[in-house]
Order: sequence, then C-alpha cells, then structure tokens
Amino acid sequence: MVGDWESRAKAKREAILDSIPEKWRLQKIPSPEEQKDVTGSYIQQFLNDKEIAITETDAVGIAEKVAAGEWSAVDVTEAFCHRASLAHQLVNCLHETFFDAAVASAKDLDEYYAKKKKTIGPLHGVPVSLKDQFHVKDVETTMGYVGWIGTFEGKPDDPRKGTHESEMVRELRALGAVLYCKTSVPHTLMSGETVNNIIGYTWNPKNRYLCSGGSSGGEGALIGLKGSPGGFGTDIGGSIRIPAAFNGLYGIRPTSGRLPYEGMANSMDGQNTVLSVVGPLATTARGVRLLTKAILSEKPWLYDPGVVEMPWRDAQEQAILDILKSTSDKGQLSFAVLKSDGIVTPQPPVARAVSMVAEALSKAGHKIIEWKPPSHKTLLDLTFKTWAYDGGKDIHDSFALSGEDISPQVKSIYGDKAREQFTAAQIAANNVDLRRFRKEYMEYWNSTAQETGNGQPVDGIISPLAPYPAARRKLYKYYGYSAWVNGLDYTSVVLPVTASDKTVDKYEAEYTPIGDLDKDVFDAYDADLYDGAHVSVQIVGRRYTEEKTLAIAEYIGQLLGK
Amino acid sequence: MVGDWESRAKAKREAILDSIPEKWRLQKIPSPEEQKDVTGSYIQQFLNDKEIAITETDAVGIAEKVAAGEWSAVDVTEAFCHRASLAHQLVNCLHETFFDAAVASAKDLDEYYAKKKKTIGPLHGVPVSLKDQFHVKDVETTMGYVGWIGTFEGKPDDPRKGTHESEMVRELRALGAVLYCKTSVPHTLMSGETVNNIIGYTWNPKNRYLCSGGSSGGEGALIGLKGSPGGFGTDIGGSIRIPAAFNGLYGIRPTSGRLPYEGMANSMDGQNTVLSVVGPLATTARGVRLLTKAILSEKPWLYDPGVVEMPWRDAQEQAILDILKSTSDKGQLSFAVLKSDGIVTPQPPVARAVSMVAEALSKAGHKIIEWKPPSHKTLLDLTFKTWAYDGGKDIHDSFALSGEDISPQVKSIYGDKAREQFTAAQIAANNVDLRRFRKEYMEYWNSTAQETGNGQPVDGIISPLAPYPAARRKLYKYYGYSAWVNGLDYTSVVLPVTASDKTVDKYEAEYTPIGDLDKDVFDAYDADLYDGAHVSVQIVGRRYTEEKTLAIAEYIGQLLGK
Repeated sequence: MVGDWESRAKAKREAILDSIPEKWRLQKIPSPEEQKDVTGSYIQQFLNDKEIAITETDAVGIAEKVAAGEWSAVDVTEAFCHRASLAHQLVNCLHETFFDAAVASAKDLDEYYAKKKKTIGPLHGVPVSLKDQFHVKDVETTMGYVGWIGTFEGKPDDPRKGTHESEMVRELRALGAVLYCKTSVPHTLMSGETVNNIIGYTWNPKNRYLCSGGSSGGEGALIGLKGSPGGFGTDIGGSIRIPAAFNGLYGIRPTSGRLPYEGMANSMDGQNTVLSVVGPLATTARGVRLLTKAILSEKPWLYDPGVVEMPWRDAQEQAILDILKSTSDKGQLSFAVLKSDGIVTPQPPVARAVSMVAEALSKAGHKIIEWKPPSHKTLLDLTFKTWAYDGGKDIHDSFALSGEDISPQVKSIYGDKAREQFTAAQIAANNVDLRRFRKEYMEYWNSTAQETGNGQPVDGIISPLAPYPAARRKLYKYYGYSAWVNGLDYTSVVLPVTASDKTVDKYEAEYTPIGDLDKDVFDAYDADLYDGAHVSVQIVGRRYTEEKTLAIAEYIGQLLGK
Repeated sequence: MVGDWESRAKAKREAILDSIPEKWRLQKIPSPEEQKDVTGSYIQQFLNDKEIAITETDAVGIAEKVAAGEWSAVDVTEAFCHRASLAHQLVNCLHETFFDAAVASAKDLDEYYAKKKKTIGPLHGVPVSLKDQFHVKDVETTMGYVGWIGTFEGKPDDPRKGTHESEMVRELRALGAVLYCKTSVPHTLMSGETVNNIIGYTWNPKNRYLCSGGSSGGEGALIGLKGSPGGFGTDIGGSIRIPAAFNGLYGIRPTSGRLPYEGMANSMDGQNTVLSVVGPLATTARGVRLLTKAILSEKPWLYDPGVVEMPWRDAQEQAILDILKSTSDKGQLSFAVLKSDGIVTPQPPVARAVSMVAEALSKAGHKIIEWKPPSHKTLLDLTFKTWAYDGGKDIHDSFALSGEDISPQVKSIYGDKAREQFTAAQIAANNVDLRRFRKEYMEYWNSTAQETGNGQPVDGIISPLAPYPAARRKLYKYYGYSAWVNGLDYTSVVLPVTASDKTVDKYEAEYTPIGDLDKDVFDAYDADLYDGAHVSVQIVGRRYTEEKTLAIAEYIGQLLGK
C-alpha cells in the first residue's frame, strides 16, 4: 500500500466529488483572484428562493419552522445538502457526504410528525454537520489520513468498521437531528490550517486568500457558507474556536467532561492531561445554545464515563440575564481585557475588535479592567508539552500506514519522524507543574475582586482568539491566544465582532516586533489582502460556566448589533 | 543523614509521645492478650463523665450543642485532645498533635460566639482530625517517611516548610472546625495496613490482633476510639473506605473532582489516570454529610482548579427520601449484589454482612438483583497499572532520602528498588483501555433497567469493601474489592453492618479456594481471632452521586438498626 498513497488520496478525493449529485455540480470554480468572497450573493446564485430562505435561517429558526409544520424535514435537508455541495466545490470542506441516508431519516421524521402531531425532540429536522472524527454507521472516518481510507482508525479488519457510531451521533439522532455530511480536518488535527492529502486545503469562503482555520476547519467553512446551520467540532488548542472566529460564527469550547467525546476518533488518544473537548459551532449564539442544551438533555453522563453529571443549568443563565436587566451599580458585570499576552501582539483588526467589545461593554455600564495574569509563556510551555508526551509516535504511526507526505504545517510541529517519548515521571512532573500554575492563575482571577468595584471577581475575559483575523496559507505560526484556554480548561465562547478594514487596520508606523514570533505575525499582515475578513474575539469564563459565558457572548453580540 | 534513620525515627516517635501532656499519659499499655478491645468501657475508664458525653456525641450533635451554647468549643476540644492522646498510646494512630493551637482556636471561637451570639460556620467548635497528607501551618508532614522529617515533602529548604496550608485546611478553619492532630499512614500510602518506621503499626482498637486499615489507618483507629468525631482521609485504592470499614465507621469515597485535594502531599503526584480523592470518615452517616456539605458550601471550585462546580444538591438527596417515603411499587429502589468478584471469595463475616444488607432491603420492599459485571480481573489489571506508571520511582526516591527500611507490606507491591517506567505511549494505551472498560461497565449498569422491574437501572451496588472484616498483620493481600471502585471513579459509601461472630462465621467444610489469592484470604481467616471485629459493606453509586449514595447508606443503617 505504501507508495501508492497519491492514487488512493486522489480516488478518495474524486469519490467525495462524485458523491455530489450531477445537478448540483458547478461548471467552473473561480480563482480567488476572480472571486475572493464566495459567501452571500455569490453562492446564492446557485440556489432557489426557498433554498436560500431555509439555509439562511439559524438552527433555532429551523427547529421552529419544522415544529410548526411550515417546512418539512425533507425540504430542509435537501436545501442544506445542496448548499453543502456547493460549499465543498468552492472551498474543499467535506470529507464525507451521505445525502441519501439524510433524506431517508428526514422522511422518517416527517412521517413521525404527520402521525404524532409532534416533534421527536428539540432538534427535529435540524441538519447538523460533523467534524470527521465522529463515527457514523456506513460512513468512513479518515481524519485526513490516507492510511485510514477503507479502515477503522487505520485498522483494516476492525469489526467496528462501518458499524460503529459515536455516542453523540446516537444522541443527535434521538434528538431528531438530520446528519448528512462530515467535514474536513488537517491530518493529525494538530493545525490551525485545514490541510491533508485527500481534500487538499480548506479555504476561507469569506476571503479565499486565507485559511478556514482548523482543526475543525471544514465545519467553519461549511457553516460560514451556510451549508450547515450548526455542527460539532473538537478543541485541544483552539480547534473549535479558530474556525468559528475565522468564519464569523459563534462557537463554544466547553470545559472537559461537559459534552460526550465517547467513541470518537482522535489523535494521541489517552493523553489525559489537556483533553480535547467537543462542542458546537453555529451561525448564532442561540444556535450554539440549542445544540449544547439538546445534547445535555440526553443525560450524556449515563453513556460516557468521562462526562460530569451536570444538566443545562437555567439558573446560571438566568442569573446573568437578571443582572443585565437590573439597573443598579451592584448589578453590573465586570470584564478583564487581554490586549497582549506579552509574546505576540495581535494584528490590527484583532486588536480593534478586542477594543470594540471592551468599549461596548463599558458604554453599557459594565466595569472593564486590564488582565495582567501569571506568565502565559509558562502556561503555554506546560500546555504544548502535553501534545509532545509521546514524541509524535501516534501521528507518525498513522502517516506510516500509507507513507504519505506530511504537510509542512504539521511537520513544523512534529518533525518528520517520532522523537523521544516522555517517561511517566516526566509526565507526572509536568502535570504537577500545570496544576500549580492553574492554581496560581485561579488566585489571580480571584484577586480581581479588589478591582471590579462590586466585590466580585471578573465575570469573563475578553481575549483575542488568534493574532490573525484568519491566517494565510502556511503562515499559522502562533497558537498562544487559543491554547492558553485549553491549558487552564476554561470555558470559552467565540463571537464575531467586525470585518477587517484596510482603511483603519494598520500597525503603527514605528511598530517594532517584540520577538521572533511577533515578527512572523507582523510580517504576515497585509491590510489589502485581509480587507473584509471576519474578525472575532473570545469571551473566556471559569471552568464549567457554559451557560453563563454563552449568555454573556450573546449579550455582547446584541450590543454590537449582531 | 542516611544510615542514621533509626535514631531519627525514634526521636520523632518519642516527640509525638512527649507532645501528650503528662496528665494524660497511661501507666501501662496492655498487650492484645490482656486487652483485645480497647474501645468502649476500656478507654472510658480514663475519662470523666463530661469527656465521655462529649466524645461519644457525633459531629452533628457536637455542632448543635456548641451552637446552642451548651458546650464551649474549648471543653469539646480538650475532651477530644485527651481521648486522642489515649488512643495514640493504645494503638499508635497519630503523627502530629497540636493541642495548644487547637485550644487557642477554640478560645477564639468561644469569644466570637459570646460576642456575636452566633456561630462562625456549620463546623463551629467541631474537632476534625486530618490524615498526615494535609499541610497545617507550624506542623510537620512526614507521610510516614523518615526522610521527610524536618523538610517540606522531602525538600529541606523549601520555603513552604512550616507555613503552607492545604486548601481544605483553610476551608475547615473558615467553617469553624478545630484542627488538633494529624493521623498515621503507611509510608507511600499504598497499603491497607498502616505501618511506617516512625510510629510502627496502627492497630485496630476493636481487635488489636487486626490492622486498623489503611492508608487512612490513623483516622480509622482514632475515630473508631472516638478520639475524633470525624476526619478526612484520601482514597486511591480504598484508603478511606478500608479504615472506615475496619473500624465500624461511615466513610465516603467521592468521585474525583468533588472535594478539594489542592495543596496536599501525595504519592506519585501527577499520575492523572486514577486519582486519589479526599473524603470524610465519621461515626455517623449524618456526620459524613455534615463534613461533605460544609466543604462544598465553601465553593472549593473557586480555589482548587481540579474541583467541579457542583454544590451540595439537596434535590438529589430529596429524590431518594421521597422514594423511600412513597409506598407505590414504582417508588421502590433497586440494588445489585456483588457476592464475589470471581477472584476472591469474601471471608464468612463479610459474606454474611453483604447478605444481611440485601435481605434487609428486600424485606423493606426494594428489588435486589445479582451483579454480573464485565471482568473485574480486567478492570483491576488496568487500575493497578496506573499505580506502577513510574515504576515506583517517586516512592523509592522518598525512601532513599533516609535509607530507611521498606516495610514488607510496601515491598511486596513496589519491590526494593524502582522498576522500568511506562512510556507516554504505554500510558496512553492503558488510559484508552481503561476508558473503554468504563464504557462497557456503564453499559452493563444501564442494562439492569431490564431486570429491576421499574424500568430504571439499579440505584446502587452492595459490595464487600475488602475480603476481610479487617486484615491481620502482613496478611493484607487483596485489594480487588476496594480498587474496582477507584478504577471506575464511582462514588462509594462504607457503612458498618455487624460484628464477626465465631459461632456462625465459618467457611463451608468442603470450601476449596478458587485460586491463589483466594487461598491466601481463606488461610488468613480465624473465627476465634476475628470474633467481635467490625464488619462493613460499601454501597457503590455512579459517578457524582454523593448525595444519593449517602442517603441510601444512611437509610440502610437505619434498617439495620444502627
């Protein structure tokens, strides 16, 4: 098999394209020079009015329309299958399509509705896309590895091949969701750019000179093009939040143990220090809430041994809403702003977005302070080490299955062969150091009670999610603004803020980079090229504050007029 | 220093004894032959009536009496200091005493009460004992290692020496608890017998031919002698539950992340797969509840990065109480009984206790089924491997600090020098295997819904906690009945059931051991020697079911007339 990897990758690539019905094929894919932005009116030209109405409705709206009997699940499903097909042709965002199975399950839902006069669950008829780590019956999972084609996670004869479903897939079906496609990822999952030898490169639909983010880059691009109202990604260093941010979406990185990861494919599975977590991306904050709340209503702690028994807590959300409604001084929220982590200065559009959020909150009467935490350099060193515990053995074993080329994005992190592994004692020492750092960080957070004026520590941190609005190809060099959250296992919600604007977003004339990494980021900025790109920030909350942090992010979106 | 360890151990041993006020010293310590049981009337002879009344009241009763102004915190503290001093002389259960500091803090509490006419918190004036892993200001922590004497966790010049306090210590003080002593542990913590070169061996006060259990063996013996109304131990393989069971106490092993471990000394710290957890032991179930609930009222998730945001949930407790009050068939609870794990048959008194609990529940109208889970052998193999990840490096490094002898109990597990460590990939593989096993076990639990008759899976498992009522010296050979719970991270509550009875507790005449481990356990049984020993069982619940499982254990205690 080794040596033959290029033809196997090509065959798979063609099979994905061939799975798109003839009627939905595009004659010509424009170059980025011809068409930088393929969202909005560009993609709409290939759709009829009803398809546009359906696909430009968010997950909550779709659920409502189907529940009211205005739209059938089949109509909704077909519209999204169509738009997803267009999206893939424009930006390479899909690994798998299973439109026939989707339409069949939509028919079942419509029959159920016709017969029982009610929905089967809160996601009845809502299409949900899945990152290509989820196992779905009768569908392959390659995770971008050529060596995984035709296997179960690289094992050709594993009895789970074609039959196994991830726990969350079972729950989504029970909730009434319609599953129809799996989205692209960088091989290894360990990159903020989505690149692999099967689909090539997933471009940012808003600005096809930029990446769609990663590792849930297919989700980001697909939802960004409204080929899906919402879907699930995973995040060990930013992989939900980066594509959410780069595509103008809402996305949540829950604290580990909140949502069920059971039965999914993964990289470096069994590394137990900084866990990859699963969470939704969607076009609206309420879409993210619907998906999160729906999964929790299935009591995943009874089916995934890693999930904490913690239902959706309306009271935590209501507490924030009550404060926002109140007018007293005591009732205001407080936030800290992280303008720079001291290692890399965010590019001008990102810096502006952070300021916009801080100013909007301040204007609305909330207290804003500066975030001056313990060293993020220390935090990042401890965090990045956890990704290197096995010296890259797991990923290089997967590459070796086919002998395929390793993308430069991944090679820059993991080299071209496995390195020495950490011993148990070295792992334990890093775990202890990280735990101590988390305690120190927590004490710093607690100490802000002295600065907020209401006696309470800050309710959240306004932080860049990446130094870029979106990275350019092969230029994603710095993960510090997303990975610090993973190192601390905090909850974080990304929200869209603005668009890059070449007329205002410029480094100061005398700007001098603060170090090599900052120079990379500085050099990568090009105001003209970035013009029009989405710019987002993240709101970071303490552990297990999904309800609260999402309510805050939604509120900020409203303040910004989104 | 090395070579000199015997004199250093002796000096420390004498210092502990010397810290007991002259007036409380015993003239003569009887041999076990002279006085097998030193609880009850034996120890009472050294106390006056008020001291007996105070020390034989449980933690809830003490809190009530002090809150009502009937007892002063000082009187309570002095009574427990006295009784703890007697306990140590009789069974070697203390590593540290700090009676003067305790009386001083009790005085402060009394003054607060006199002035404010209210208590400072729910533990106002309640003495709480601590396993010698907790750091307390101005008090040493040796964890039984001679090499840790005069250091901070083996480091002579660490600035935390004498100043650092564990997070839970801070919380206990804030709640009004009076801290007065730290209790004995086996060096390494990895034994069910409490033995080290400083205090020697902690005997079981009810039957001084038997061990007090471990690793929280000093807690078990001290509370068993009512030298403390309740205290905190830790549990990675049974270390809270074993001493609770062997001393006729209630004890809870919470799920990891429920109570704060922050800032405590530990063995093999940084092993992140099967975590040691902290939890209370007390003379009553309501005492265990008071201590657990009090700690949670301090919101430990704001001070310990490993704690989950989960307050005490009255609703979970009430749901059980409501069912117990209801009379409908639907309202009954259901339980599974684990009579044998297929590896070792529990000794006759333990088997009888398990049956007594099952029969009492059945008689009260609850459904009892048999527990036939996935292989406990597989589960235990996966669990025990986590304790060997570092090949014993951490503990042998601590032994090497002094060159002290390693007890045979520990040597039988960790050898006399460190072995090869697991690599990162080997650790990851074991972590994945354990997670899959947990999922399989969870599915089995869910499947019992088909057997219970009410459509719900069982509410708990009735299981032995050890194959012995208590082990004999050097004969604790099998940890399978406690460690399976740690491997699954389940919540478990130990409750006392009965006493060994030589007239009924006998193996069947034709009993043939089912394997080597079972033969060890069979051979260790001696009906005469065991006569009168406490016999306990554990009620095992799913993860994060502390409120429910404790309510069930308390109810069973009431059924049994305790």
